[in-house]
Amino acid sequence: MTAYQSLCEVVSEISLLTSTEAVLGWDQETYMPAHALDHRARQLSYIMGKAHGLLTAKKTRTLLERAEAEMPEDPTQAANIHGLRRDINRATKLPQKLVEEETNVCAHAKAAWAEAREKSDFVMFAPHLEKVLAIARKKADLFGYDGEPYDALLDLYERGAKTREVAALFEKLRPQLAEIAREAVAKSASVKPGALKGRYPIEKQQILNREIAENLGFDFEAGRIDTTAHPFCTTLGPGDVRLTTRYDENDFLSSLFGVMHEAGHGLYEQGLPGLDYGLPSGSAASLGIHESQSRMWENHVGRSRTFWEKWLPRAQELFPHLRKVKLDAFMKEMLRSEFSFIRVEADEATYDLHILLRFGIERRLVKGELAVHDVPRVWNEEYRDLFGMTPPDDSRGCLQDIHWSMGGLGYFATYTLGNLNAAQLFATAKKQRKIATGLEKCDYAPLLLWLRDNVHSKGAALLPQEIITQATGKPTDAKWHIKHLRERYVG
Amino acid sequence: MTAYQSLCEVVSEISLLTSTEAVLGWDQETYMPAHALDHRARQLSYIMGKAHGLLTAKKTRTLLERAEAEMPEDPTQAANIHGLRRDINRATKLPQKLVEEETNVCAHAKAAWAEAREKSDFVMFAPHLEKVLAIARKKADLFGYDGEPYDALLDLYERGAKTREVAALFEKLRPQLAEIAREAVAKSASVKPGALKGRYPIEKQQILNREIAENLGFDFEAGRIDTTAHPFCTTLGPGDVRLTTRYDENDFLSSLFGVMHEAGHGLYEQGLPGLDYGLPSGSAASLGIHESQSRMWENHVGRSRTFWEKWLPRAQELFPHLRKVKLDAFMKEMLRSEFSFIRVEADEATYDLHILLRFGIERRLVKGELAVHDVPRVWNEEYRDLFGMTPPDDSRGCLQDIHWSMGGLGYFATYTLGNLNAAQLFATAKKQRKIATGLEKCDYAPLLLWLRDNVHSKGAALLPQEIITQATGKPTDAKWHIKHLRERYVG
Repeated sequence: MTAYQSLCEVVSEISLLTSTEAVLGWDQETYMPAHALDHRARQLSYIMGKAHGLLTAKKTRTLLERAEAEMPEDPTQAANIHGLRRDINRATKLPQKLVEEETNVCAHAKAAWAEAREKSDFVMFAPHLEKVLAIARKKADLFGYDGEPYDALLDLYERGAKTREVAALFEKLRPQLAEIAREAVAKSASVKPGALKGRYPIEKQQILNREIAENLGFDFEAGRIDTTAHPFCTTLGPGDVRLTTRYDENDFLSSLFGVMHEAGHGLYEQGLPGLDYGLPSGSAASLGIHESQSRMWENHVGRSRTFWEKWLPRAQELFPHLRKVKLDAFMKEMLRSEFSFIRVEADEATYDLHILLRFGIERRLVKGELAVHDVPRVWNEEYRDLFGMTPPDDSRGCLQDIHWSMGGLGYFATYTLGNLNAAQLFATAKKQRKIATGLEKCDYAPLLLWLRDNVHSKGAALLPQEIITQATGKPTDAKWHIKHLRERYVG
Repeated sequence: MTAYQSLCEVVSEISLLTSTEAVLGWDQETYMPAHALDHRARQLSYIMGKAHGLLTAKKTRTLLERAEAEMPEDPTQAANIHGLRRDINRATKLPQKLVEEETNVCAHAKAAWAEAREKSDFVMFAPHLEKVLAIARKKADLFGYDGEPYDALLDLYERGAKTREVAALFEKLRPQLAEIAREAVAKSASVKPGALKGRYPIEKQQILNREIAENLGFDFEAGRIDTTAHPFCTTLGPGDVRLTTRYDENDFLSSLFGVMHEAGHGLYEQGLPGLDYGLPSGSAASLGIHESQSRMWENHVGRSRTFWEKWLPRAQELFPHLRKVKLDAFMKEMLRSEFSFIRVEADEATYDLHILLRFGIERRLVKGELAVHDVPRVWNEEYRDLFGMTPPDDSRGCLQDIHWSMGGLGYFATYTLGNLNAAQLFATAKKQRKIATGLEKCDYAPLLLWLRDNVHSKGAALLPQEIITQATGKPTDAKWHIKHLRERYVG
């Protein structure tokens, strides 16, 4: 057995632990009863501690050194060795105690967030956010960084990205995005709301969501959809991708776009090389790539006219009161742009503004320029500057997102990076006649195949920017996204 | 820290692993998609192997020896040390490889069983049963036994029980039970079936089941109900007891009695000392005690007239077509006895005959007197002798139960032992005026309190027969069960 193969066996063992942690986490979000929380937090912390211990063990590091010395010629194997070096170096910088503490803190923070959000009570969540933030800053210090501490966190989600560069990009985009949003909202003012008003029974929504997820190519033999406070996608092992959404009885599009978004993530996960599960080559490249998949299926596919040419009639079968709605009116209503409070329900034309807001606040939190107790005030002020209105409560303000409670500081920027990648990938793919023809008749197999070949199958063996460049000929460029928004929303 | 305290810390660590295995197992039965099976089997096997490794580690055994040398005066602590000695001695006899193999084999066997049962295809399940049986026999050999190999397996579920004694008891009971069954069935012949015919929407059944489980005292902050092919109850940690049932749109009593049975198990689990989770004093005493709880709530409470005086009107609200059914007619229909194929749906008067059949077949399988491929034939022949009819297919014959696929050879006898204990405990409890008065108005708090005091809170710090004797004044005696059946079904 080569050192590389022995190393793969250790990685496989680690992946049994991390995927078990994913099962525990999924259950916590979906079905776990309230009184189970303390024990669940201990289970999570124990399992993650074991995984961390194994990843950083002397034996593992020795195997890695031997694998590096033997360095295989196969480029995927070599990429895995490089990737593991990076992961192990990073993990070795974190004491196991800190990993266990983080898991435990976040398990409680998630539960506290869910309750605080429901009650719109930031004070209830604040002490948890303090703890999460302290751990994030400690991690940043331990990982090290060239520029500012946020770099170390951002890099966890978007390998190679620099805070300064992202901030510069966002500053450049800000006036353009603000202008598009303003014009889109103004243009939508003439659309009388309420065209889709009515009751949408949850069981019927579930039928439609499932049919559509299947149409996109999501494999229900290797995945499922459940209900949670905040939609997400998680992989519990090869052949086991779980999506979640939430339901609003007055708005079927809310759960549906949740499902299409998460199914985009799920299609990516189902397309990763299953045999390499746990290795870099079997893992997602970055969140900026992940979000490119979710946003592409949700927006470029799911909000297109051709999509609704097929699916509006089916929705009308399930929801008879929609029969009076013509496709034109439906499209106008669905693409109606407005300044709204909730990011996950925001329309495309205003979405990125939500991200710019969060990126700025997070960066300052991590830098220590903003105190936790000031978050609601600053959030609301900056929200007012960007959107011209103030959130009526923290549930619709700084308490709306699950990310901080999960320890996901550094994550938000990847949504906008994902939007840029989505537009660029989609524009490139559409140039192929077969894909374009498929899109016209809601046959998504050619698009999915192209994504499998050009994105999914690469895993993290390439850098995010290498994937984008190889797939589209150029590194990420905002022009495609801006062009797409202008065409659809300003026109 | 005393040696006992250090030992408790190791036990607590082991319980993090075993409870994580329970989460993985629960998810497998409830929500896991099909393609996840291989990875799930590997996760289960890995986690169980780790738990076994820790339980049998030199360090653990040394701590146990030190705790034994220091032997605390506190009787619960002493009982825990004795119990752990027993568990560790037993576990030490099993190589870790065998534990991992068993977990893996059973994970696949459960999935194969579910499919084989659906298709009524014993041949599909047979190779899995061969593997499970081989492991069970190997375990029996490693554990050792005085009489026959089945003793070693029976003891896993009913501490201290001997195959020969159970067989003698069952032989003695057999003619009495057969006579009761015959008379009950004959008496029921005059009850025209179909009084409850109609459609029972699953959502409505779920509402009723939940209200009734709450009425019994089941805490939904520390548990829940899901849907599976075969009803079960599993504990995922302190404060986390999961029940399952299955639904028949034509028969609300099927899912309801499933829930009442499993809630009986669940009330026991919720009543175990949570702080001792993982220790003998925080664990169930035996399955014969466990089943006494499930059968008591299901049958002694759930099939009583006073129970339905309260709950029939509520069922009539939920299922309007029941409004025409009078309580007398309802009771006659619900207590109608008939020879039927499915154990979990069998009425009380015929139930134990199903157990006698299984006990005999299992015993011979384990002894090697019966080959796996002969099981369907022998099952059907013996079924015919006991019930006077032949199962039309293996789904309604030897494929109906999940137990063998779970490696649960040795389990079945505990159902009848549980019936005997249930009748004896219930007859004793009812002598208290407060409990009797409570039962009359469906206030089950006094009964539950008595069970908490006399059964639940004891954990496994006492032997099953010590619990029964202390609670009722005598060891298990079949007369209470026979008396109960005669009064209710022969009269």
